[in-house]
Amino acid sequence: MKLKVKDVQLTTGGPLVAVLHEKTAKFLGIFPTDRIYIKRIHNKDGVNCVIDITKKGIKEGEIGLFEEVLKKLKISHGMQVEVKRAEHPASIQAIKRKLEGETLTEQEFNMIVRDIVNNELSETELTYFVSGCYSHGLSIKETVFLTNAIVNNGERLHFRKGEIILDKHSIGGVPGNRTTMIVIPIIASLGYKIPKTSSRAISSPSGTADTFETLAPVNLNKKKIEAVVKKTNACIVWGGGVDLASADDKLIKVRHPLKIDPTGMLLASIMAKKKAAGATHVLIDIPWGKETKLETKKEAKKLKKGFLKIGKLLNFKMKVILTDGSQPVGNGIGPALEAADVISVLKGDGPNDLREKAIFMATEALKLVGEKNPEEKVLAALESGKAYHKLQEIIIAQGGKKHISIPKAKYFYNVLAVKTGIIEGIHNKRISLLATLAGAPEEKTAGIYLRVKINNEVQKGDILYTIYTNTKQNLDSVKRQLKELDPIVYE
Amino acid sequence: MKLKVKDVQLTTGGPLVAVLHEKTAKFLGIFPTDRIYIKRIHNKDGVNCVIDITKKGIKEGEIGLFEEVLKKLKISHGMQVEVKRAEHPASIQAIKRKLEGETLTEQEFNMIVRDIVNNELSETELTYFVSGCYSHGLSIKETVFLTNAIVNNGERLHFRKGEIILDKHSIGGVPGNRTTMIVIPIIASLGYKIPKTSSRAISSPSGTADTFETLAPVNLNKKKIEAVVKKTNACIVWGGGVDLASADDKLIKVRHPLKIDPTGMLLASIMAKKKAAGATHVLIDIPWGKETKLETKKEAKKLKKGFLKIGKLLNFKMKVILTDGSQPVGNGIGPALEAADVISVLKGDGPNDLREKAIFMATEALKLVGEKNPEEKVLAALESGKAYHKLQEIIIAQGGKKHISIPKAKYFYNVLAVKTGIIEGIHNKRISLLATLAGAPEEKTAGIYLRVKINNEVQKGDILYTIYTNTKQNLDSVKRQLKELDPIVYE
Repeated sequence: MKLKVKDVQLTTGGPLVAVLHEKTAKFLGIFPTDRIYIKRIHNKDGVNCVIDITKKGIKEGEIGLFEEVLKKLKISHGMQVEVKRAEHPASIQAIKRKLEGETLTEQEFNMIVRDIVNNELSETELTYFVSGCYSHGLSIKETVFLTNAIVNNGERLHFRKGEIILDKHSIGGVPGNRTTMIVIPIIASLGYKIPKTSSRAISSPSGTADTFETLAPVNLNKKKIEAVVKKTNACIVWGGGVDLASADDKLIKVRHPLKIDPTGMLLASIMAKKKAAGATHVLIDIPWGKETKLETKKEAKKLKKGFLKIGKLLNFKMKVILTDGSQPVGNGIGPALEAADVISVLKGDGPNDLREKAIFMATEALKLVGEKNPEEKVLAALESGKAYHKLQEIIIAQGGKKHISIPKAKYFYNVLAVKTGIIEGIHNKRISLLATLAGAPEEKTAGIYLRVKINNEVQKGDILYTIYTNTKQNLDSVKRQLKELDPIVYE
Repeated sequence: MKLKVKDVQLTTGGPLVAVLHEKTAKFLGIFPTDRIYIKRIHNKDGVNCVIDITKKGIKEGEIGLFEEVLKKLKISHGMQVEVKRAEHPASIQAIKRKLEGETLTEQEFNMIVRDIVNNELSETELTYFVSGCYSHGLSIKETVFLTNAIVNNGERLHFRKGEIILDKHSIGGVPGNRTTMIVIPIIASLGYKIPKTSSRAISSPSGTADTFETLAPVNLNKKKIEAVVKKTNACIVWGGGVDLASADDKLIKVRHPLKIDPTGMLLASIMAKKKAAGATHVLIDIPWGKETKLETKKEAKKLKKGFLKIGKLLNFKMKVILTDGSQPVGNGIGPALEAADVISVLKGDGPNDLREKAIFMATEALKLVGEKNPEEKVLAALESGKAYHKLQEIIIAQGGKKHISIPKAKYFYNVLAVKTGIIEGIHNKRISLLATLAGAPEEKTAGIYLRVKINNEVQKGDILYTIYTNTKQNLDSVKRQLKELDPIVYE
């Protein structure tokens, strides 16, 4: 059947969706949530879409298409397409089996992930998959299958066979904490390859990719990344630019509303990214504590165990460290403010907690590859300026400027201590929220700069933290929230 | 914040959804799948909506609204609305608990169902709820809570206190099988109240509401239904017209893609409709057999047990019967063809299997209310024409014509036996699909008329079944499928 394309001028954010008038649907024998196959006239290949049926907006003989379908088929408003009923993807049966508590095979995970990547599953179907994994859990074997499926259905970085490729990952949840940008140049300056793909902030004030973007472009394609790594031994790029684990991004979207993180999926998501980046040796940082992703040491230890089991089956040499996540690491929260902390540490100064944590992690990474006197080598790389120069190299290779200059925000506001006392706690979530309200990460220079840490003494009138914004409006909006979101506890 | 309304000219089919440009969302501090509260300027009350964020189609300062929101707020394209960030509904926490395998309280089910009815949950969140109920099941207590929550958040029919109200229900899955339209007038003619709300077809060729609609209007409001029942002791109406269990319709929609029927939800759905219709005595028919909803007698028995347990806690007097669903009941499949079978039986003739099943069910219903010599009374009601006249009364009370005349389709085509043999099987699903392809239920007169049943002998050249359609196109489309969908097995 031939239908005329109507551009509905909306995106679905993933699934391929087409809208039909109810009479057109009826004529095609299609019911809600059925599939249709659409192709351009005279073209050989088309796509399968999920169907929405409407009485309004789309006329008989028309087909309403969302952005994703228009793009994939390279068609536009007013064109004609050929449409017919399509079968449901076979992966739906596998999803149902998982929801019923069955264990899935390698082939089934492959089918599901392939259909996710091709946007052939509806949001409802994706949700059923996440539900099944959450309700019944994933066995170690299933987690490995899922990891491999994600890797096999995405891009991969390729390096020389047999070569040691290091990688590090923090499961996040702690504001600041930009150790990556220090550990990577240290390790690379010592002669090891360590290509790093990072994430952008979703609901936090900054991801490593956002922070590094204040110094260099991070949205590089696969070829460019491989060239940068060849040249400098390292890279710090945005993972979303290379589709190393594109299935994962789509799963995250449906996990968001209920804040659901099935452990198996979390493990598969991280490990798949490491494997796709070519890693052979992996260091994982699990910060735990109040207001982080893992509130107790018990939970953190359990996750560590999971990582080690999966890592073994994936042939990684792995080390998992538990670290203190009870307060922000470093002083800056927000892209440019965090970058300033990183540069300061690499220049031999810098917030002490960030420096210490980075040294510890770099040392652990060196131990993992069997390096002798690892801590001395790390300190030497830092103190000699070798690590700083390596960061400059990486910045230049990725297309940034040699001269590092970090922009500053237009407005600032100091929040002062109203009494003398000792800092007892810093709310991670409130600090993050304030930095977000200030404009981070879109406003690169916006955020919070902390002047105190737990156990510090403060006198009445001391600066507790500084708020940076680029508009008066944002500054006012943060100030209005200060009472409700006061993040510093001192007595 | 004030935004200008853009009518996106689409329906979501349930959830209240608004679309914002990513910059507007950022300014409001809103992330994907967050909520916003929208109200008309100067109005007191607004609604909470789920958010979609886009870069295209909606400009900054605009808010794209789907049909459902426009209707609820009584606003239109170009108007201004007031918008602010809103909290997630508390029911989301309860849904998460269910997904984690916890048992929910009466209050939690109430919250969830209330939010479903008010369209405050997104499709993803609804899906998580169904998943939790499917993965972990519902206890008997939870099923009762869910049933009551559905009843309390919908319309109810009201009758005199202490009065006996009969009801019958078939869980469906068998083509034809229009016993309702025979049982209801028999029982009503014997002096009992038996108000019946029925469903329309979703993906089958006809629901009882579609079939009865060939004789009388079925889309009656609550007041009208109560008047019809007062006058005639009965009614046969479309349940969707009275919102007796509106939460249920929304749940069915997300259950469709995976064809998921969590037993507890199925039970709650049916029982809520009976309770909302005011029933005190309930007869349930569970047809089982190949190509029905329950393939084995074991499954059917298990479901029966569930019904009886829930029924007891809801204070119903109940009887559950298991019946043969291995082939269609009656000859007609499609609204008008089924109606013709029903009228034929009520006039003392009719397909024998339909007649026998209806007599059996009416007898069981009478036993349930303690009537003596039930079968004799049922036969007398049928043979005296009392039941037929009662059906006429109901038709007239609902606004139909006194003179019953069933329309006929324009085209027909006889499918003949290609060999002599004995009928061994009739594929329920294929028969249904053929009737749907012929145009049922939208085309009231379209469908299939069966001329054979299992164990019948056929000679080469005998008519196996007749296809009825109203357009040449539909007839051709059925004929093309005949080879692949041949529903009659004979050897």
